[in-house]
Amino acid sequence: MFNDFKLKDDSPVYVQLKDYIKDMIVNGHLLAHQKLPSTRELSRLLVVSRNTVLNAYAELEQDGMIYAVKGKGNFVGNVTTLKTAAIEFDWKTKLNKETLLADELDLIRQDLHWQRGMISFTSIAPEEKLFDVENFKRAFLTRMSIEGDIVLNYGYAKGYKPLIDYLLRYMEVKGVDISNKDILITNGFTEGLDIFLSSIAKKTGRVLCENPTHHAALKLFRLHGLDIHGFDMTDHGIDIDQVEKSLAELTYDFAYLIPSYHNPTGIVTSSEKRNAIIQLFSKHQIPIVEDGFNEELRYSSAHLAPLIAFSGAGNNVVYISSFSKILFPGLRVGWILADKELIACLESMKRARTIHTSTLDQAVLYQYLQDSYFEKYLKKARAVYKKKYELARQACNQYIPFSRMTGDGGLHLFIELEEGVDARRLLKKCYTKGVVFYPGDVFFTNGLGSNTLRLGFSRLSDEDIVHGIQMIGDTLKNDMGS
Amino acid sequence: MFNDFKLKDDSPVYVQLKDYIKDMIVNGHLLAHQKLPSTRELSRLLVVSRNTVLNAYAELEQDGMIYAVKGKGNFVGNVTTLKTAAIEFDWKTKLNKETLLADELDLIRQDLHWQRGMISFTSIAPEEKLFDVENFKRAFLTRMSIEGDIVLNYGYAKGYKPLIDYLLRYMEVKGVDISNKDILITNGFTEGLDIFLSSIAKKTGRVLCENPTHHAALKLFRLHGLDIHGFDMTDHGIDIDQVEKSLAELTYDFAYLIPSYHNPTGIVTSSEKRNAIIQLFSKHQIPIVEDGFNEELRYSSAHLAPLIAFSGAGNNVVYISSFSKILFPGLRVGWILADKELIACLESMKRARTIHTSTLDQAVLYQYLQDSYFEKYLKKARAVYKKKYELARQACNQYIPFSRMTGDGGLHLFIELEEGVDARRLLKKCYTKGVVFYPGDVFFTNGLGSNTLRLGFSRLSDEDIVHGIQMIGDTLKNDMGS
Repeated sequence: MFNDFKLKDDSPVYVQLKDYIKDMIVNGHLLAHQKLPSTRELSRLLVVSRNTVLNAYAELEQDGMIYAVKGKGNFVGNVTTLKTAAIEFDWKTKLNKETLLADELDLIRQDLHWQRGMISFTSIAPEEKLFDVENFKRAFLTRMSIEGDIVLNYGYAKGYKPLIDYLLRYMEVKGVDISNKDILITNGFTEGLDIFLSSIAKKTGRVLCENPTHHAALKLFRLHGLDIHGFDMTDHGIDIDQVEKSLAELTYDFAYLIPSYHNPTGIVTSSEKRNAIIQLFSKHQIPIVEDGFNEELRYSSAHLAPLIAFSGAGNNVVYISSFSKILFPGLRVGWILADKELIACLESMKRARTIHTSTLDQAVLYQYLQDSYFEKYLKKARAVYKKKYELARQACNQYIPFSRMTGDGGLHLFIELEEGVDARRLLKKCYTKGVVFYPGDVFFTNGLGSNTLRLGFSRLSDEDIVHGIQMIGDTLKNDMGS
Repeated sequence: MFNDFKLKDDSPVYVQLKDYIKDMIVNGHLLAHQKLPSTRELSRLLVVSRNTVLNAYAELEQDGMIYAVKGKGNFVGNVTTLKTAAIEFDWKTKLNKETLLADELDLIRQDLHWQRGMISFTSIAPEEKLFDVENFKRAFLTRMSIEGDIVLNYGYAKGYKPLIDYLLRYMEVKGVDISNKDILITNGFTEGLDIFLSSIAKKTGRVLCENPTHHAALKLFRLHGLDIHGFDMTDHGIDIDQVEKSLAELTYDFAYLIPSYHNPTGIVTSSEKRNAIIQLFSKHQIPIVEDGFNEELRYSSAHLAPLIAFSGAGNNVVYISSFSKILFPGLRVGWILADKELIACLESMKRARTIHTSTLDQAVLYQYLQDSYFEKYLKKARAVYKKKYELARQACNQYIPFSRMTGDGGLHLFIELEEGVDARRLLKKCYTKGVVFYPGDVFFTNGLGSNTLRLGFSRLSDEDIVHGIQMIGDTLKNDMGS
């Protein structure tokens, strides 16, 4: 740039320079608000006196072609240039159906917008007032002082080694045989599931799951064009007899299960059933994707081991989890624990798609766990959530005429109303009274569940929990006739 | 769990309790190293005396079924349980061809492993010694004190609002008309490109790009099954005549271009050519994906505006960039600047796949930019890299018998050796002398470039730059015959 400046005639150099720059501006080679070289720099570059440049800039400023900012230098002004006639695509015609579907699925639940002051049971995100910000800062400063420069540079696709080692040990203590397994760090649970879905061969194109189940997983299944087969939830987990009947006739690419504090029902699959599930799917050679969702949120100190522990030295379970439902979801850190060879392939996919997960997030999370701030925080969080949980249960029992309520722990309860009661209609009525919840139908694989709703209580005060549930109950009893 | 404990006979309660627990352990309902309820808790739960539980635990410990950890409680021992016979999948048979391809493409460059003490020209990552860790810490602490709890909780798929606003203004100053445009924050450039590739309809299945070009982009194109058409690079950018000829016969889903400090050639596309490119692709209604790669690494204060600025109010350019080549690649933050309607759809894809990019990374980066630490850092970094750049250029001129050298700035140079000289053979020989570089063929769309190499100098000392380049030159002159 500027290096093709040549003297054309014997008119003053500064005039020729001015015209040369003016020309570049009107031809769009220099654009509005773009910085010009300093006078010193340009005089050196063009081998002309600095005065020549100063004069040229002065003239350009008078012509309104450029403007000076004190202490910052000279900038190109807002000049209409000979730019291309702006072209306007209709981008929607250029996108594939999955993207338009994602857009559409996104809109589904945006019909009722939450507003300040409302009592919202929609969220199952952690209560940010509980966040242990001070110890998080400590963990950050510790890690930065140990290897700040490394934390800020490129890392490995597989993840931050100290965190991987920590999590392997963490899962081993849960009873998992990690001898033939490895961990890939992902941008939260969702990327973990998406990478798995992008990697597994769609031979039957069928996925087996609980019905209802996690709506974000359902969305990804649809985006990956999977044929979703949901099976009823009993109070102890998926209806294994239904599943067994189906497996006698059909096979599936994989099963997706949420054994602990299932989303949305909050049901915990019993150990007997966990055993039976592993037996059954092993017999039929079907891989299981286990969603570790909320596993940490146990309210009694003894806990069921994850499915992947029940499979022992087997490699048929792919365990995907994150701490996002308890600890700092703003940090997007999740992990896949699975067969070593599988992880190696998923790692290549991860590298190709997002290089690696934020080293900063991983390193600070590691330090926070390592300094056992996590255990302390978890104790506190459990006590708080347990209280809210019991309060919400009690209030539902007292105020809501349900036909079924499930939720063995975690951050939410699932309510089944009488047949025929429309939860979305109820939602509309409650909305006008300043109470919102999550309509249950979005969790169903087969369009059912119009009479169900999910109540997330993690971010509500005790008063709002009771008051909100009472309002829902009153609305049900009094306003649904009209 | 434990709630189905019933007294069977009149034998001591603690014995029946012991057997009950023992049974759960050997049946795998309680797993190795799993924590047992505290004696107080269990006695409450089963309505038996605490002594009964203490005795039962004591017996179990004697039997080696459980073990106690001082101050932590009782844990299940390592007991062989009646677990499922472990099942072993061959996962590779269950993965799709894209994943196996990603795995294979990954292996391509792992044949020669870099070792400590070697002079490596392979990296174009920033020099971490330059990192401004202290101001980064300041930015972190500032942001955390302002809204630490918000930063650590869920954010929005589109990104952290203050950062988006900052970047919109940042691009506006580069001459971009942002009136009809918006920004989506992604996990670095790579996720931005992957989301675009996942969203655009493959109508022709063809992508047009420079040849050679960014190998990570090539990898993603292949994973998305695109038919890649590369066009030669002149010293001022892509050979526009070649492109025009091709467009007369073929159409493409989109074009992918790197106008500034092109990877790997380091060429900067001239403003005349930028204008011509916009004209040509607009005429043929072909969208352009512009890779903003390294745009900030200009070594003279005046700079060419990005392609998206040349398209004015048009919406046919999708600009994807990040600061990763200069500033903290460990933070995975990139962005897509494009048409508002397009961004809304890409946002849904982003939400479905990774929820959102780390709020922590975005918030701290925002504060770092806002406090204008970035500008200061950039000044320093530019001065350092400019010196290395000039040093490397000079050394190549002096020592390497090349037929062509390109690189107008940035962090690397691209060398074309005499026809027939095999850069991989050269690499093997240099490797034995402790010098490695990036063989150029991986950047080519058509298997050519066996006589090319990329020299990244960003992380090397001045001495190593000169010494390493001299070694490459000497090897070329003396050892390639044998």
